[in-house]
Amino acid sequence: MFGSSSTDALVRAFMTFPGVGRRSAQRMVYFLMADPSARIPSLIETLQRVEARVRRCAQCNNLAEEELCAICVDPRRDPGFICVVAEPRDLDAIEATGTFRGLYHVLGGVLSPLDGVGPGNLAIEGLMARAASGANEIVLALSATVEAEATASYLIDLLKPLPARVTRLARGIPSGGSLEYLDPRTLGHAVAGRVDA
Amino acid sequence: MFGSSSTDALVRAFMTFPGVGRRSAQRMVYFLMADPSARIPSLIETLQRVEARVRRCAQCNNLAEEELCAICVDPRRDPGFICVVAEPRDLDAIEATGTFRGLYHVLGGVLSPLDGVGPGNLAIEGLMARAASGANEIVLALSATVEAEATASYLIDLLKPLPARVTRLARGIPSGGSLEYLDPRTLGHAVAGRVDA
Repeated sequence: MFGSSSTDALVRAFMTFPGVGRRSAQRMVYFLMADPSARIPSLIETLQRVEARVRRCAQCNNLAEEELCAICVDPRRDPGFICVVAEPRDLDAIEATGTFRGLYHVLGGVLSPLDGVGPGNLAIEGLMARAASGANEIVLALSATVEAEATASYLIDLLKPLPARVTRLARGIPSGGSLEYLDPRTLGHAVAGRVDA
Repeated sequence: MFGSSSTDALVRAFMTFPGVGRRSAQRMVYFLMADPSARIPSLIETLQRVEARVRRCAQCNNLAEEELCAICVDPRRDPGFICVVAEPRDLDAIEATGTFRGLYHVLGGVLSPLDGVGPGNLAIEGLMARAASGANEIVLALSATVEAEATASYLIDLLKPLPARVTRLARGIPSGGSLEYLDPRTLGHAVAGRVDA
């Protein structure tokens, strides 16, 4: 914004958000400045409420507003079936499918030695404790990136000695995927993981 | 966000921004929640600074951090040449061209009777006072929408009796515009406004 260092600072703050460039950030600031005495205090209050109330679930490390998150306290969910995800956003993605009725465990990231993220930085200890105390199945719902696959291998080594069944998400053709445009790796996984018709 | 009403409220707050849908708003909240104790207070502080410091320039109604904005106090700019714009974003757009070295007057919107915006809701009185006290030229830099054109006509009627020259932005072919894809109105303006080669 011309000549206002405070609004410029706010544009830069919004630009730190993923996917928000200079133009989008400027539009957001223009929007706030169109009615600043109403819009800014209201946004500040919402942010303060998040900061004050949101914490990590003591059991699964998901975002929560109480000691345990809304999923961990839900009596209709199967506590013996644990889905391991990297981040709360992955949990939301799986919840959106409506196909999983167990509990989750949010690692808080994936192993990434180059970024200084080792096993000690992830919620692995809590996962091992839950896995050892009566879990029937642990499904690793991690992305298909190099870091996430390394993390899955690491967890499989740790979890294999335990009695729980350890599974991974199926790999294959995405819905709507056309064979001719699929990369060879995906198609290779689809062939190797073929199922009876 | 699953099970957290505070983060859901923040998603909804970000969704009020223009151009921000649910997915973008969620990504913004996930970003904040990846390091909430650092990112949320910092964003709150930036918002508070904007709210406390940013006001309207007493002369031109632009955003300012002092009594007068950075443009109005710039001695290198021509105070006799006034560019009338609807919003601070339009001022920024013209500043970005680097072609205007006069001062601005920000109306704060355009006439829109259906939205209850009449002449009394815009900074027209201040513009008339400036126009009457020694301005040489007043260029109306308003959009080519129906409301903005009606606002320009209204202002032209008010400004014409004054000694200042009243001008409008040129209409015609946009840079990179291909004749075959131009709408008839734009092409008609380009023909009517043809200049000597």
